[in-house]
Formats: sequence, C-alpha cells, structure tokens
Amino acid sequence: MNTVFQFQEWVSSQSERAELALDRLLDSAQTIPHRLHEAMRYAAQGGGKRIRPLLVYAAGQLGNQSDVAQAESLDAAAVAIECIHAYSLVHDDLPCMDDDDLRRGRPTVHKAFDEATALLVGDALQTRAFEILANANCDAQVRLKMIAALAAASGSRGMAGGQAIDLESVGKKLDLLGLKQMHAMKTGALLSCAVELGGICAYLSPAQMAHLASYAKALGLAFQIVDDVLDATADSQTLGKTAGKDAAANKPTYVTLMGLDYAQKQAKELQEVAIASLDSFGASAQALKDLALLVVNRGK
Amino acid sequence: MNTVFQFQEWVSSQSERAELALDRLLDSAQTIPHRLHEAMRYAAQGGGKRIRPLLVYAAGQLGNQSDVAQAESLDAAAVAIECIHAYSLVHDDLPCMDDDDLRRGRPTVHKAFDEATALLVGDALQTRAFEILANANCDAQVRLKMIAALAAASGSRGMAGGQAIDLESVGKKLDLLGLKQMHAMKTGALLSCAVELGGICAYLSPAQMAHLASYAKALGLAFQIVDDVLDATADSQTLGKTAGKDAAANKPTYVTLMGLDYAQKQAKELQEVAIASLDSFGASAQALKDLALLVVNRGK
Repeated sequence: MNTVFQFQEWVSSQSERAELALDRLLDSAQTIPHRLHEAMRYAAQGGGKRIRPLLVYAAGQLGNQSDVAQAESLDAAAVAIECIHAYSLVHDDLPCMDDDDLRRGRPTVHKAFDEATALLVGDALQTRAFEILANANCDAQVRLKMIAALAAASGSRGMAGGQAIDLESVGKKLDLLGLKQMHAMKTGALLSCAVELGGICAYLSPAQMAHLASYAKALGLAFQIVDDVLDATADSQTLGKTAGKDAAANKPTYVTLMGLDYAQKQAKELQEVAIASLDSFGASAQALKDLALLVVNRGK
Repeated sequence: MNTVFQFQEWVSSQSERAELALDRLLDSAQTIPHRLHEAMRYAAQGGGKRIRPLLVYAAGQLGNQSDVAQAESLDAAAVAIECIHAYSLVHDDLPCMDDDDLRRGRPTVHKAFDEATALLVGDALQTRAFEILANANCDAQVRLKMIAALAAASGSRGMAGGQAIDLESVGKKLDLLGLKQMHAMKTGALLSCAVELGGICAYLSPAQMAHLASYAKALGLAFQIVDDVLDATADSQTLGKTAGKDAAANKPTYVTLMGLDYAQKQAKELQEVAIASLDSFGASAQALKDLALLVVNRGK
C-alpha cells in the first residue's frame, strides 16, 4: 500500500458510489409493474462484492478525473455491467441451469419470488443495462463503444457462449485448454469488459487499452482459479452460495485438473502478471493493482 | 390496392430482404459454441410472418430511399427487432412461462434443444439485437436513438413488464382497461417500436413521428384483438401454435371481455384509425396502410 492511496478507503467510497448509482439508475419499486421492479432491485442490490463496478472506476482513474461527463459515464458503465452480471446470476440459478437456492447469503430470485418472475428479471436487467448506456450523459461515440463492448462480452461469443460450453462440459473430460477457453468466455469476458468500459470513458489510447487488456486477461483467469479453489475449500456460509457444487456435478475445475497447490500458485503468478501489465501507468493504476491483490486473496 | 404499388410483391421482396439480413447479421452455426448458435438461428429463422421487420421497412419508405446508409440501418433495425421478438417467444414458451411445445408449426426451442439452451438462446438473441444496432453502418445519433427506443419498448416498462402483468392476471378479473394496458406493454410497445425505428432511420420530423405513433398504437391494439379472436376461433394447425390456451388458463381476453362480434368490430375500427393517421404522408405510406389491412385480416 503506498502512502498516498488508501485502498480500503477507496473500496468503501467506490462501493458506496456504485450502490448509489444502482439505486439512481434502476427503476424504483413503485414503477408498474411493482413486483417485477421490486424483484429486479432484489437481484441487483443484494450485496455482492461489486468487483466489476470497482474495476470500471479503477480503470476510469487512468484518465482525467475532473471531467463531470466522465464521472457520469463511469457510473452508467458501472451500473450497466452490474446489471448484466446480476441478470446472468439470476438465470444461472434457475432450476434448468444450476438450480441454486442460495446466492449472496439470501434466497435466489426464483426462490424469493417465482421462476417466471426470475426469468423476466434477468431479461429486463439485461435490457436496462443497454438502455442506461444509450442514455448516458456523455459523447455518442463513447456510448456506442461501450454498448458494442458490453454486447460482445456478454453475448453468444462471450458470457452466454461460455455458459453454453459449461453446460456441455458436465461429465465430459474437458482438458485445461478447454477449461480456460470456457472460463475466458463465461467470466473473463465480462471482467475484461469492466476494465475496458473504464478505459473507454477515460479516452485511453489504443496502446493503453492493450495494457489494460493484458491486465484484465490475467486477472480474469486468476479470478476463476480462485473461485474454483474457494468452491473446493470453503463452506456455503463463507461463500454465500452453495459450495462444492462443481465437484458434485462432476464438472472439471482448475482444482481437479491442476491440483489445489498448483492452482493456488498459478493464481498468485497471474496476479503478478496482471500488476506488471500496468507498469506504464504509474501511480494512477494503484487501485487496479490493489484490486488484483483483492481478487486473488478474497475469501481467505 | 393502388396501380403503382403492388403490396403482395412488396411483402415478398421485403420479407426476403429481412430473411437475407437475418442470415447475414446472425452469427453462423459454425461459430463456437456451435449448438448455441445453431439454436439461435433455429429460433430466429423459423419462419413467422416477419410483421415487425415489414413495419420497419414500410416506415423507412416514408423517407429518402436512395440513401445506402439508410438501407443498411433499416436492415439492422429489422433484424434487431426480430431478434428481440424471437427471444421473447423462446422465453415465453419455456415450462415456467406458457409451457408451449409448438411454435410456428415446429417444436419450440426447449423441445428441439433443451431448457437451459433455450434460456441462453433468448438471452443471447437479446444481446445480439443491441450489438447489431451499436455496430450498424449509420449515424451515431441514429444508432443511439434506435438502441434507446428498442430498450424502452422491450424492457421492464415495455414488453417484459407486460409479460409480468400477464403472469399476475391469470385467474384474476382484469377489466378491459387493465387488459389494454397489459397488451400495450406486452405486444404493442414492440410493434410501435418497429415503426419508430423505421421513422428514425428515415429522419422523420417530430410531427411525422407523432402520426406514426398514432398509427402504431391503433395497429398494436388491433393486432392483439385479432390474436385473441384467432385464439378463440382457429385450430392449432392453422395458428402454428397451441390454440385456446388463454381460455384454458382462465386468462382474460378481448373475446371473453367484449364478446366475439364486438371484438371483431373493434379490430376493424382500429384498422381504420391506423390508416387515417397516415393521411399526411400520401402515397409513400401505402405499405403501412396495407400492413394494417394485413394484420386485421390475417388468418382468415
């Protein structure tokens, strides 16, 4: 931790900023239909670590922070990516997918409401993500670049495609390369997109965007390896979701393919690669560097 | 039918144009993951009347047709709105919603593939709709207006919201006003949006957009009344989907609330209102006028 930048304070203030932006940019529970909007808020505002919004804000710090329009575009980006993440969790938890009852320590949306409502909640949160970006108070080109990036990261060649590959992998002998490709789409693409959206808002150069992309790629892989390590070692109460499900479903994980020790070592190495990618940014990248530490050390 | 404009030929050529645009703008079935992309194509290319794309093209004719960029933006709009429509059908047919086995005369996506794939197909088709608009070859402002309009029409204050109200209405005594509000959101918003997207591509004036909106509002209501009439009178083979489901589910319909004769009379009157809204456009609105006739007379 350097003496100027206090990471814990930054995380607190930026998490609160994300919560306020979510509250402001989601429709109120008084909007008709009430139950759907209430359920959308339940899904999007139920806690969570807000890692994607934090990545957006951290990457946005690499640019000129005095610009009001930029601050608003970062809020829009943070909320949009969190809406996409929340929608994917709601749909992932449905009985026809992972059939989970618990998420972030609370009943999943289809348990707290009902299955049909959960389906619509996911659908409408996705729509709202793109609507928020389209109506953000910033340059038209920034908005369009963000929409295109978010769609590419979350659609059939990104997150949704990764989920489809994940479904097909149950009971199959997916090798390490296959597992990496699946996770690069399923979770890596959206994590990378968070950083990319911040960079777009900050008007970074193509060379700077390339450094950010290297950071995000290593971070995304580390994130998933740590996820698998936690799934294999932590209990449900600590995770806030059902633990050990992947092993029970006979799904390949980094832990089953690499072993626990090697997986933990890999995560640590990837964290170092991520941090090294940011060398050229200097002190403005401190939040991104500390987030890489946070991701790898979470849950311990 | 006027002597210059041949509606049947127009419908044939513009339907083919929509099919070609869908084929071009959807990812190929060779894209990884293959099964998801194959299922997305199955969902979006399985026939249907293509009424929304036809409305886009018809409204687009009100502007300057010689503009190549405008032709491309109309194709993007036509495909995007059909992707949204297709996603809504795939999710609507799922067991937790309408639980339908038959759509457009073929097995529904969750029957032809599986439930989890159908969920992802709907999710990814929605994403693709916004991606296509963001990357369309036309003015940034046109793209952003289209994205904002499509999101507003299809999200929690539009189509998805209407579906939520529809879910809540089963077994309830929804009155005629309530039924109209539900349908205005559930199906009317997206039909209106089709016309709106065409008008945006054609750079229509606010006054012209208001005339279009009047047309679309009357058309959307007529469309739903005719849907209810067909559901009450036609068989499954003619409809290409399961007939009589609304009555079986004890859902209120225009036919149960108005009676069959009055519902048919109302549809006819709304068709006349729709056509009268277009008076100021002259001959360029002939396709829209004929589409209003087609909507009310379909299935007979």
